[in-house]
Amino acid sequence: MVRELRYLLYELSHTILAKKRQILVIGNNENGSTPELERVAYETGAEVAKSDSVLVTGGLGGVMRAACHGAKDAGGLTVGIIPQNEPSFANEYCDIVIPSGIGLARDFLNALSADGVIIIGGGSGTLSETCAAYMHKKPIAAIKNTGGIADKFADQYLDHRENVKIIGVNSPKEAVKFILGKINSA
Amino acid sequence: MVRELRYLLYELSHTILAKKRQILVIGNNENGSTPELERVAYETGAEVAKSDSVLVTGGLGGVMRAACHGAKDAGGLTVGIIPQNEPSFANEYCDIVIPSGIGLARDFLNALSADGVIIIGGGSGTLSETCAAYMHKKPIAAIKNTGGIADKFADQYLDHRENVKIIGVNSPKEAVKFILGKINSA
Amino acid sequence: MVRELRYLLYELSHTILAKKRQILVIGNNENGSTPELERVAYETGAEVAKSDSVLVTGGLGGVMRAACHGAKDAGGLTVGIIPQNEPSFANEYCDIVIPSGIGLARDFLNALSADGVIIIGGGSGTLSETCAAYMHKKPIAAIKNTGGIADKFADQYLDHRENVKIIGVNSPKEAVKFILGKINSA
Amino acid sequence: MVRELRYLLYELSHTILAKKRQILVIGNNENGSTPELERVAYETGAEVAKSDSVLVTGGLGGVMRAACHGAKDAGGLTVGIIPQNEPSFANEYCDIVIPSGIGLARDFLNALSADGVIIIGGGSGTLSETCAAYMHKKPIAAIKNTGGIADKFADQYLDHRENVKIIGVNSPKEAVKFILGKINSA
Repeated sequence: MVRELRYLLYELSHTILAKKRQILVIGNNENGSTPELERVAYETGAEVAKSDSVLVTGGLGGVMRAACHGAKDAGGLTVGIIPQNEPSFANEYCDIVIPSGIGLARDFLNALSADGVIIIGGGSGTLSETCAAYMHKKPIAAIKNTGGIADKFADQYLDHRENVKIIGVNSPKEAVKFILGKINSA
Repeated sequence: MVRELRYLLYELSHTILAKKRQILVIGNNENGSTPELERVAYETGAEVAKSDSVLVTGGLGGVMRAACHGAKDAGGLTVGIIPQNEPSFANEYCDIVIPSGIGLARDFLNALSADGVIIIGGGSGTLSETCAAYMHKKPIAAIKNTGGIADKFADQYLDHRENVKIIGVNSPKEAVKFILGKINSA
Repeated sequence: MVRELRYLLYELSHTILAKKRQILVIGNNENGSTPELERVAYETGAEVAKSDSVLVTGGLGGVMRAACHGAKDAGGLTVGIIPQNEPSFANEYCDIVIPSGIGLARDFLNALSADGVIIIGGGSGTLSETCAAYMHKKPIAAIKNTGGIADKFADQYLDHRENVKIIGVNSPKEAVKFILGKINSA
Repeated sequence: MVRELRYLLYELSHTILAKKRQILVIGNNENGSTPELERVAYETGAEVAKSDSVLVTGGLGGVMRAACHGAKDAGGLTVGIIPQNEPSFANEYCDIVIPSGIGLARDFLNALSADGVIIIGGGSGTLSETCAAYMHKKPIAAIKNTGGIADKFADQYLDHRENVKIIGVNSPKEAVKFILGKINSA
């Protein structure tokens, strides 16, 4: 009840809060990534930045690094939440590094830090983050034709609870548009 | 290197260590569980206990509670690792409660606390624990014909890395036997 | 409200719950420990075991290892919650190992897993655990004349909130007696 | 070894990395804060911003909120890492919110996210963060005459390890100057 009231207040006061929109991009790390996936990730990071949202990623290589790179080139702000306890493990395009020190359990931090999530390809780590986002009912878009988790779960629910449907989209631009729409109608 | 040496030492000294085998049972909580699933879970808990292993679960309802119940009835020892920070949220069949206070990120604690994992049905929380176990290369058995995550991923790898295959088994007894075999040959 | 009701139920049902009393012993690790401190820790572990409580520690060396050793020699059950994600880092007297994988933030897990806390000497890690226990209002005893955090904070509150006073005691036996008294009157 | 090489690379490449300096300000929350402490916190936040560093705080009330307020008024960027799993619990001056969902264990995230730490007054939560920062050898300044933890530990080590001395300073400006000096000479 208190929670609901606080959230209502948060929503009502949206325009006066400093908090920026935060969009999480997840996908294959350097083990499993491809130049094609990284091209999509770069473009997704750029679209997140152009939408005036902060890009959040797991801060490491592959899709995470390419997304940060794209966001920086488009003048955006990037946050990397990494498993290790030293910032030096983050990729070089992270403005802000959260060296969580909690290992891969940081997948939950990533999901909780998101107002919306975009999936590009991805393996078991991406699936872990998707589960965390799903359990916390975050809007989730999966860019189709990127393989892995994105294609496996596009347009599906993760389970019988039907918390949120993972929406398949055709491009980074469409992914960001979908997330913004969900945030604005929340 | 140090890690490998420590592990070697650990293996060699196996017989003199106090540490007991720890088997994690995961599956639907009270939201999604059925009497049939709980019957399987009860039997699985009992088999874990009979094998002289400690049963680890997420400590809450449904499959977790039934597995603990079975283990207690068979004279076993049970550990519940719960998301909340108060032990009172654990089910009444947990001998030892770890009130993690880290929310659903405790799924990673569960997986890391396991020498092997048994899946019974399950939704997104179970999938999250399965991802955590897979990323840390734990032996995983899925009891077939229990639906959910167990049937969806039986005899499959979670991703291209092929860390560990999730082995489909036909009964609680077979599940425990598979896990013990993996632990003993590790 | 739900929380209060659950807790009431928990209290009322106390006699039928499987959950055992869990007592956390904290103090210097191998870096900072002494034979004298370990003698006190050994005796404390034994007293915890004799009181039919489970001994919880941080699972590593020094005071933690000595306490586990004492508990095992007295026929008790021991749980080690370690920072690493592999059980092989735990000392050899832990029956159950929780390889948290969350680094030193596991100090909070230790505190939350305690129905009461006993301090023996100790440095900054011990102080961290004491803060966590204090913030969650756990009963805390400090064995006097063991130096470090125990002597620095015996018979004091950690801050102006006066959550719980850290009670100075003269022996392991007195420490366990104090904790049991607090648990039974809770 | 890999770690050392990575860190060396990090240091050498310092000028081309996107990562900004991150300074953590800790102190009393709304329970224990005073207008005088908040004045100091506001000024500290402003000094952090003027030094072109990102302000990191625990994201809640009292000293945390006042520091964020000061940083925003000075044109800075603020990150709030909160215990809860919903961003709405953060104060209104946080640009970026990390809703950790791990409860008070987030004190460790705060410390790990800091290139340096400034203490203003403070109780047991502040002490917990100080322990975490000390164990990870972060530079720490305590603003004198603000009471609480700041005055209790100014110009002291937390324990026999003498990891880092908590340096007492006379003003927010001096605190930031000390931290910058430590970061630049690292």
